[in-house]
Amino acid sequence: MGKFEYKDSWIRIHEILLKPPNIEDNTGDVDRLLKEARKLFPDDSIILDLAIIKKVSSFLRKHKYNIQVSFYKSGRDWQVIELFPPEDRGFYGLSVDLGSTTITMRLQDLSTGSSVDEVSFINPQTENGPDILTRIHFASEAGGLERLQSLVVEQINENISILARTNGIESDHIIGMSVAGNTTMTHLFLGLDPFWICREPYIPVINQLEVFHSSDLGLTMNPRTPVFILPNVGSYFGGDLIAGILASNMYQRSEVSLLMDVGTNAEVVLGNNEWLMGCAGAAGPALEGGVVGMGMMAGPGVIHKVVIDSRTREVKFRTIENKKPVGICGSGLIDLVAQLYLADMIDIQGRFVPDLCRDRLRDIEGIRHFVVVPSKDSGTGEELTLTQPDIDSLLRSKAAMYTILTTITGMININFEDINSFYISGTFGTYIDPVSAITLGMIPDLPLTKYKPFGNSSLLGATMTLLSLSAQDDVRRIQERITYIELNVNQEFMNQFSAAKFIPHTDTDIFPSVVRKKAGELSSPHRIAGE
Amino acid sequence: MGKFEYKDSWIRIHEILLKPPNIEDNTGDVDRLLKEARKLFPDDSIILDLAIIKKVSSFLRKHKYNIQVSFYKSGRDWQVIELFPPEDRGFYGLSVDLGSTTITMRLQDLSTGSSVDEVSFINPQTENGPDILTRIHFASEAGGLERLQSLVVEQINENISILARTNGIESDHIIGMSVAGNTTMTHLFLGLDPFWICREPYIPVINQLEVFHSSDLGLTMNPRTPVFILPNVGSYFGGDLIAGILASNMYQRSEVSLLMDVGTNAEVVLGNNEWLMGCAGAAGPALEGGVVGMGMMAGPGVIHKVVIDSRTREVKFRTIENKKPVGICGSGLIDLVAQLYLADMIDIQGRFVPDLCRDRLRDIEGIRHFVVVPSKDSGTGEELTLTQPDIDSLLRSKAAMYTILTTITGMININFEDINSFYISGTFGTYIDPVSAITLGMIPDLPLTKYKPFGNSSLLGATMTLLSLSAQDDVRRIQERITYIELNVNQEFMNQFSAAKFIPHTDTDIFPSVVRKKAGELSSPHRIAGE
Repeated sequence: MGKFEYKDSWIRIHEILLKPPNIEDNTGDVDRLLKEARKLFPDDSIILDLAIIKKVSSFLRKHKYNIQVSFYKSGRDWQVIELFPPEDRGFYGLSVDLGSTTITMRLQDLSTGSSVDEVSFINPQTENGPDILTRIHFASEAGGLERLQSLVVEQINENISILARTNGIESDHIIGMSVAGNTTMTHLFLGLDPFWICREPYIPVINQLEVFHSSDLGLTMNPRTPVFILPNVGSYFGGDLIAGILASNMYQRSEVSLLMDVGTNAEVVLGNNEWLMGCAGAAGPALEGGVVGMGMMAGPGVIHKVVIDSRTREVKFRTIENKKPVGICGSGLIDLVAQLYLADMIDIQGRFVPDLCRDRLRDIEGIRHFVVVPSKDSGTGEELTLTQPDIDSLLRSKAAMYTILTTITGMININFEDINSFYISGTFGTYIDPVSAITLGMIPDLPLTKYKPFGNSSLLGATMTLLSLSAQDDVRRIQERITYIELNVNQEFMNQFSAAKFIPHTDTDIFPSVVRKKAGELSSPHRIAGE
Repeated sequence: MGKFEYKDSWIRIHEILLKPPNIEDNTGDVDRLLKEARKLFPDDSIILDLAIIKKVSSFLRKHKYNIQVSFYKSGRDWQVIELFPPEDRGFYGLSVDLGSTTITMRLQDLSTGSSVDEVSFINPQTENGPDILTRIHFASEAGGLERLQSLVVEQINENISILARTNGIESDHIIGMSVAGNTTMTHLFLGLDPFWICREPYIPVINQLEVFHSSDLGLTMNPRTPVFILPNVGSYFGGDLIAGILASNMYQRSEVSLLMDVGTNAEVVLGNNEWLMGCAGAAGPALEGGVVGMGMMAGPGVIHKVVIDSRTREVKFRTIENKKPVGICGSGLIDLVAQLYLADMIDIQGRFVPDLCRDRLRDIEGIRHFVVVPSKDSGTGEELTLTQPDIDSLLRSKAAMYTILTTITGMININFEDINSFYISGTFGTYIDPVSAITLGMIPDLPLTKYKPFGNSSLLGATMTLLSLSAQDDVRRIQERITYIELNVNQEFMNQFSAAKFIPHTDTDIFPSVVRKKAGELSSPHRIAGE
């Protein structure tokens, strides 16, 4: 993220000192204020609404004609957000990653551009629908849309007051907000009916979103706080991904980059400063921790790193905050399955090899379970197991991911080698070990330096647009420039998908490092620290 | 008022026909609509609020992608007011003269610019304060401002539904409004505290008013109907007068014109296409029908024209709608007193001459009454009388008027003869007989062709701004150009005022036509029609 420059700020706070009126200069109070404010923005218009007009006269007199005024820029106008006493300090904004599973809110100091605090919570809409499609159907029931909107808005409001209380600030000093989410999440947040998003020809209500006022959305901060919503490209390509493109800076560099956002959908953007192409396809939920039996989102006690000793076949792992293990996250799952494969404990189809799994393997109601953590070592008191269907689900996900990558590069006739950087964002982008992902054949077998785990790029991009007008302009340009490619799921795609379901692939020539590692020629470069 | 030109319209209604979405063109619904709408306004931005965004998808599908959209222009933007079915016809606007005593609303057809209907009613705020000052004080009591605002808004809403019902239109087809009023009335209409208007140094909350949405003001028409409020120049120079300047066209012509608006305040504007000067002074309420015993506003049975036979001293009059007389309006009062003077029944100080008034004169509780209409002829069943204090009050008003006229012309060193046109607007501007006003010495003794009774120029100007963008631009330019002169009520002013309290004036040389008429050399050019 670039350096914060106040002159590029979307939101400005200015002290304005007026000469009190006298009989020779009986300009109206608001006119007097505007006259002075226009000196700050000589090339633009200043807009203020009736609620501000109503308070100007008494506010000016109370503060002896010395006040602070906050503005935000909208098009060619500067709109007044609020009047503040001259001594007030500390003005904040919120950037929000509106994930369908997790919502993350970051509190930013608008004067310095620095991050003050951050909070994450489960999207409360998961109560009404774990996945997007269920929510779209729920929204079309009577009161459903309003319910889904108010669930998320109330939870955000709750967290606004937590952030305000924790950091000792007034919520009316929160005078900016920027929100990135996928198309459906954005629709639900704004109260727009997502009905047509999932129905051919897949039409969102609106893609080119702009600024709304917090009071229009029921948010409990300053009522005129502007809320910038990152635009969508289409029903399956949302503002969260545009935020990622912004944060990666790939749209400004001449070399070709690829951005992957892996969740239930695998979203891929490929391009440079001249062209940008995007596509999205279903990857399955295995990587989100929603389907795998022991899967869960990152949190204390969650396994995020696994190593299996290829001689002893001992399973070693790291958990978040070193707590007793309670489950496994996406990156841990990829590690685990990759390590099982390298230790020959599963075959190229992902089937358990009983001879090597030995007493860790058991059948429960006809389903094979592999004991990752015995109950005595588990934080839940019960054993944590990986099942055969868990592995099958993961392999379908990784196959989808790889097939999407080969398809998009094939469509524009580019080799993986020609791609300079692979940004991996999304829930597990922060933790993913590219070696394990390559071992599984999820991502191409390329030098590790090309892989750039990217964390929450949606939040990062949202934060940039909260702080910078040129970032907002860039977002609009990205939205216009991007070409969305509809993935054609034809026989060729299905053939490639089937070949990619093997570990690493039926065509092992394209994964030479995995072949060598499997043959013991390459040692696994990652070890559990402290071993 | 100029010819209506649709291309200069503030409000536009366009039919928009869209190609339905398909899998090759999955633009969002709102984006699709905007793309087409931008072709209508290639040089401007289009703005639409969340409420419209929410209804676009279902509305487009319901009407098979063929709809009508109404827009209004605000600065460099066209804002969407509403979506309408393709078959809807008849879109209307309201122009409003927000008088402190009477409110007049005119229903205009926005497609043709023609007037459809008009309604007038007493400003309900008169309940809480007959005059402006009382209302300002009332507004500063707890709940007072809200009460005054809601009184006027509710009455306007009531009349909107009457106009809609009478003319068989839907109130959501009313998609424009323009309002002219004095500074205090405008403040109360918008819910702005007028507290400082009447306190030195007399500062309004705001002069440079612009467009608000009807829903901000609690008006029951289409919620996004734009409401253009004519700006004020200062506390005592309001948008009603700017409307008058606009309607008179004096600001565009090279010859000098004078505009008089006579009510409780006498407001005067002098100028041409190069300069405009305005001033205002208290004229007293005599001309508004509020103080004079038999005075009332124009209505059925109100005397608006009086002739006294100089031989028989018989009092003849005309009433509105030829109903039995119930009172007298401002123009009738001026006629009556001028005729009494010409018939020698009052002297130059306005005192009754008993020898000539004879049995029409009586003393009631020490106050002299002149019987204008005996009880047998009266519509009220009681006699209608003019008292000595009534005359005194009128003479103070006319003296104030004349002194203001001499002062403003004196300040800029111009003779009355150099003024090309005298526009007389305000409540009695429609009916005033310049001959009688000259006889009393209220206005200068100039050729009658110079006097142009101007009717409700505030309503006329409001209507122009409802229909025309260039009229709105002109209003802004007038507001900026006008120089407001504070009347310096010094000894010289008081001397002139005293001299002007006589009929026609202590200096009869400046009223030669009155001298000749009084001497019988000129016959009164006006007669009751049909005599």
